[in-house]
Amino acid sequence: MLTYSFENIGHEPMYEYMYRHIRQDILEGRIKADEKLPSKRSFARHLGVSLIVVESAYAQLKAEGYLYSVPRSGYFASSFEPVSQRVPSLLLSGLPEKPDETSYFADFVTSAVEPELFPYALWTRVMRNVIATENEKKLLVESPAAGVSKLRVAISEHLRDFRGITVDPERIIVGAGTQFLYNLLVQLLGRDRIYAIEDPGYLRLGRIYEMNDVTLRPITLDENGIGIKALTDSEAHVVHVMPSHQFPTGIVMPITRRYELLEWASQQSDRYIIEDDHDCEFRLIGKPIPTLQSVDTSERVIYINTFSRSLAPTFRISYMILPSPLVQRFQQKLGFYSCSVSNFEQFTLARFIQDGYFERHINRMRSHYRFKRDLLIRELTTTLGSCVKVQRKESGLHFLLHVDTEMSDEYLVSQMKEQGVRISCISEYFHDGARGNSHTIILNYSGVALEAIPAVISAFAEALL
Amino acid sequence: MLTYSFENIGHEPMYEYMYRHIRQDILEGRIKADEKLPSKRSFARHLGVSLIVVESAYAQLKAEGYLYSVPRSGYFASSFEPVSQRVPSLLLSGLPEKPDETSYFADFVTSAVEPELFPYALWTRVMRNVIATENEKKLLVESPAAGVSKLRVAISEHLRDFRGITVDPERIIVGAGTQFLYNLLVQLLGRDRIYAIEDPGYLRLGRIYEMNDVTLRPITLDENGIGIKALTDSEAHVVHVMPSHQFPTGIVMPITRRYELLEWASQQSDRYIIEDDHDCEFRLIGKPIPTLQSVDTSERVIYINTFSRSLAPTFRISYMILPSPLVQRFQQKLGFYSCSVSNFEQFTLARFIQDGYFERHINRMRSHYRFKRDLLIRELTTTLGSCVKVQRKESGLHFLLHVDTEMSDEYLVSQMKEQGVRISCISEYFHDGARGNSHTIILNYSGVALEAIPAVISAFAEALL
Repeated sequence: MLTYSFENIGHEPMYEYMYRHIRQDILEGRIKADEKLPSKRSFARHLGVSLIVVESAYAQLKAEGYLYSVPRSGYFASSFEPVSQRVPSLLLSGLPEKPDETSYFADFVTSAVEPELFPYALWTRVMRNVIATENEKKLLVESPAAGVSKLRVAISEHLRDFRGITVDPERIIVGAGTQFLYNLLVQLLGRDRIYAIEDPGYLRLGRIYEMNDVTLRPITLDENGIGIKALTDSEAHVVHVMPSHQFPTGIVMPITRRYELLEWASQQSDRYIIEDDHDCEFRLIGKPIPTLQSVDTSERVIYINTFSRSLAPTFRISYMILPSPLVQRFQQKLGFYSCSVSNFEQFTLARFIQDGYFERHINRMRSHYRFKRDLLIRELTTTLGSCVKVQRKESGLHFLLHVDTEMSDEYLVSQMKEQGVRISCISEYFHDGARGNSHTIILNYSGVALEAIPAVISAFAEALL
Repeated sequence: MLTYSFENIGHEPMYEYMYRHIRQDILEGRIKADEKLPSKRSFARHLGVSLIVVESAYAQLKAEGYLYSVPRSGYFASSFEPVSQRVPSLLLSGLPEKPDETSYFADFVTSAVEPELFPYALWTRVMRNVIATENEKKLLVESPAAGVSKLRVAISEHLRDFRGITVDPERIIVGAGTQFLYNLLVQLLGRDRIYAIEDPGYLRLGRIYEMNDVTLRPITLDENGIGIKALTDSEAHVVHVMPSHQFPTGIVMPITRRYELLEWASQQSDRYIIEDDHDCEFRLIGKPIPTLQSVDTSERVIYINTFSRSLAPTFRISYMILPSPLVQRFQQKLGFYSCSVSNFEQFTLARFIQDGYFERHINRMRSHYRFKRDLLIRELTTTLGSCVKVQRKESGLHFLLHVDTEMSDEYLVSQMKEQGVRISCISEYFHDGARGNSHTIILNYSGVALEAIPAVISAFAEALL
């Protein structure tokens, strides 16, 4: 039977120590794909630990997709070919061909998904299944403004089971991407409102509000996120924030600031908070802080999330949760629209979620991203040493790399471009144009292949050392 | 060999006479599905007509989907089970169960497609094919604002081959439904512009412009469509029209009025015409009048069309053709958006068009709709006699039924509702609310099953006689 010594455990909780070792054994192939693990009871006896230690370790491993369980049969190791088999080739592969001047072999700016990670076959199987079994009539009619109820129910069940959010499906509105939902929100909340956004922040978000001709107030962030005094002074009615993982700063808004923000909203009857939870599925370390939506008692939070990030950017399916008073306003003002996502995709996604494929996919992706991030950080710090400092690596699909350099941000970006690596710096994300030199690179690593990492490291070494 | 006598032909062109008889033989099963037709040459010799007569008749039958051809083998009759086998059962079926108070067995208001007419299996086969052969990377990245180029090229080729419109794919913008494109157009043309719409017209269109907070001017129609004097007086910058088949009046704008409209647009540099060609694929009689887009020399026409109508309402895929000067403006102002249609659906539709499936589908649908419309009109006029007058039946998927009655429009609608038939009257489509009693019913028949027609006729007889 598998044996782990708890001798050198130090202060680490026993279950975490155990979880970490089993995970490593799976990733490095010592526990093979589909190999059965010892039963919890016999394993606990064997190691001389309490049952709860094994149970906790297994539960964590299962939640993260390293193990899967078969009822009345036990726990088995997941297959990790895509990750574990690539590791050696990655370390041996060396530099790829010198990239074309205008093309990048690694892009840390665009959000993408590595193609081989998307479950194509499964997705089309589910779609065929939907066509074979769903009432054809339902598939071919116009979709109601808020989306088909089957998908809204599936999302609500998913939120309940995996995010601890309880929400009536009636409050869920489905739309073709978050950008589309922002446009809809301006129509819902009013074009005469003042909208506050985070600065620095997603520039596209500012563009969308500008294209909607609303008054826009970028609010400078402090180390805890958007400043309440500046927000109040701005006279904004609506504030658009990313509390679980701000882009680009990576700030996770602490709970105190969250309550201050909710307090701000409750002070006037026409104030709303748009909570953009774009990559909450990819919190990689520690427990998540509750969403604003889940602690909002005065019904002022509009929660937005997307499947473009968790499935692939090709999918233009996002949803928002409206506070109850806005649901009626939505039906009255905007209920005449057709939902902008095809029924085919809505029904397929509903089935994909309800059959458990979505959660399994997320778990696999999370493991993969954690692996990739750890590798990238380890290689960066090993090679570049004291020249760089990794920041905000806890959650989401990007972290920051502060660089000790005399180079301007612009020059640094251009140097990396010459090497075929696309990066951006925090200074580029201020709404009034470039703000000095941040010397802080945003590494949005989701679309960068593991195989490209050695070459990325060489490129950084070339530019910085 | 098939024999047709040309004795009683009268003034009808020979090819049309021949086309009409062969069509009838196919529909009524005298020529069986997949039966080979005589070769053009021997058929011409046999009937004693010139080769060109047979060629023209075959070409028309093929274009409309009654025949298909196999290279080096000849012409074969298409399969028409869904239509021809239903005819007898339809005439025997009688009334369905008494419908529930709130449900309709026939809905002449909502645009729908009968489920059995959509080629599900084909669509998913094409999708599987796309996944198997398309570069996976392309499928999973974010789609550029205007859509993937493969689909834009496919649309441009289709327009060239079947609609005689030559247009650079660069000018084609793909979006998740026409409603979405209208929203985008306001952002492109400016929210400070004045927008004119047709009155009566699609009420949802007015709602969308209202939700965009633009100044809206409904312009009363005369018998040729939108009045140029009223339009000029309105000081509108942008006019939104449906020249090929106005909803709800069914007016086909004559060529003279089209040129007057283009002349109006060319008088000031910031005037634009939005040409909404929503059901142009379903012109059922006669040659189409050229689109405004194709006769526009001063680059003021924005052409909009949708696949929601030609495939099924579930699809939220529409496109617009921008005049060249607006293409650059689109890229500058709105190029930051992602296209709102998933890449999967874009690539699948591109293949569906390029492999000829789309045109074949349209042809089949057109035959089906023509058959349904003819049956409906024949039964209505036979049963209701001089009490009704059919109007505007030439094109598109709705026609008008003028009723000689003392009843108010509202009462008529409620009487039909009691019978389980959903109808609407022209008076409901004025932008300032109900406009008197039009006594004119709009019969949007696309989603009404053939089987329902006898009961529809009974319902009308009950309400009107």
